[in-house]
Amino acid sequence: MGDGVRTLRLTVQYDGSDFAGYQLQSRARTVQGVLHEAFQRLTGEDVRANAAGRTDAGVHALGQVVSVQTRTALAPQVVGRALNALLPADVAVSDTVDAPPGFHARYSALAREYRYVVYNGPTPGPLWRRYSYHVGDPLDATRIDAALSPLVGRHDFGSFGRGMEDRISGVRGSTVRHMMRARCRRVRAFLIFSFTANAFLRTMIRSLVGTVLLVGRGQLAPEALTAILAARDRGAAGPSAPPHGLVLVRVRY
Amino acid sequence: MGDGVRTLRLTVQYDGSDFAGYQLQSRARTVQGVLHEAFQRLTGEDVRANAAGRTDAGVHALGQVVSVQTRTALAPQVVGRALNALLPADVAVSDTVDAPPGFHARYSALAREYRYVVYNGPTPGPLWRRYSYHVGDPLDATRIDAALSPLVGRHDFGSFGRGMEDRISGVRGSTVRHMMRARCRRVRAFLIFSFTANAFLRTMIRSLVGTVLLVGRGQLAPEALTAILAARDRGAAGPSAPPHGLVLVRVRY
Repeated sequence: MGDGVRTLRLTVQYDGSDFAGYQLQSRARTVQGVLHEAFQRLTGEDVRANAAGRTDAGVHALGQVVSVQTRTALAPQVVGRALNALLPADVAVSDTVDAPPGFHARYSALAREYRYVVYNGPTPGPLWRRYSYHVGDPLDATRIDAALSPLVGRHDFGSFGRGMEDRISGVRGSTVRHMMRARCRRVRAFLIFSFTANAFLRTMIRSLVGTVLLVGRGQLAPEALTAILAARDRGAAGPSAPPHGLVLVRVRY
Repeated sequence: MGDGVRTLRLTVQYDGSDFAGYQLQSRARTVQGVLHEAFQRLTGEDVRANAAGRTDAGVHALGQVVSVQTRTALAPQVVGRALNALLPADVAVSDTVDAPPGFHARYSALAREYRYVVYNGPTPGPLWRRYSYHVGDPLDATRIDAALSPLVGRHDFGSFGRGMEDRISGVRGSTVRHMMRARCRRVRAFLIFSFTANAFLRTMIRSLVGTVLLVGRGQLAPEALTAILAARDRGAAGPSAPPHGLVLVRVRY
């Protein structure tokens, strides 16, 4: 490093509704794109804002972590405040600190914690519609919670998502992940799912939620999850739940 | 009544963000306007959807009550379900029942319950921005709650809003209202205000909240509210808090 290059660690919140996901795209509005633009305006640098979780279009974040290498001499808190003044209303930096050299938001992360919210009222809830998935049919949260328990541990989650494709060889990486927590509890009319794993496959949580919602409706036995997991086949799982119920809550290092 | 005319009582929820308030306007999108349109499409009638609280632009509702006179022979639940299929995503009917003859959502109401939400985190909260008012400076909820207590009871609230203007005479009505509850409590980073009164003057809650936020910031003594109330002068109160933190929660009959 040296030459005055520092690594900053930013905690970032966003409303994913109007973003085509985190990762930079040339023709679409992305969280990474607006962060790059804000840094460009603040420091004049073309930084690369690496995120712990590259959330899909429509997915929200309360505790996304982003690392940035910069030559700015500004104090971290000043950078955070200045970025908030430059960022649009649907993105904000909630914390900015100096990170140890070599810190990388994605590669240094030990675990990611996501929440998925289902609004299970009998009629649509206009005030919850942007941040939860409305399911009108009665759902059994206890049955769903039971169905999730075999997912905890080290498993091949190939039934719920694909491995990362290597850019050069085109070879797909492992679909083995370590799930530390997979729970569902009811809070009034809401079902709150919480998932913690070392890392998640793309669309894995939405695929898991969509599958266990079939259990919650009584269309699938809770035990079925064990067989679906063992199949290691994308066709074995249920349909994916929509992105707007999903929030990246925290990243552990 | 007779001639097959019934009165339906609807409980209505809406996200006020994209509405110019409840009350019908010829050139703007209003909640009453979309309700009239949905009824027109469902029953072919030109109904008048009278609401308990004529919320301003940007104000939300979880429990607005609306009365409608109709000749439809459909069961109330069927009307509710059909309306939800016809209404846009930011309005929904959560309950539909037959009301006694002569029931009027506004004139029959005994009390209205509103909530105002302040997000008091140090940095902006993109996920809360549509349904709460962000105040970055630390606020003392206990001090605010104390400041609110002299408002409870029967008072002339002329310092916080104007009386209704009579359409014909132009004479303004009384600004005396009976406040049954005026509280503020902290729930994590949120300040939740709850207000119950027989009725509220227009912009009264936003004016009250704006004023007690000065108390919460330490810019005004809690005791000042007694003098502001006694002044019966719109100039005595603080600035109004913005509409998007306000929700009509319930109406009592």
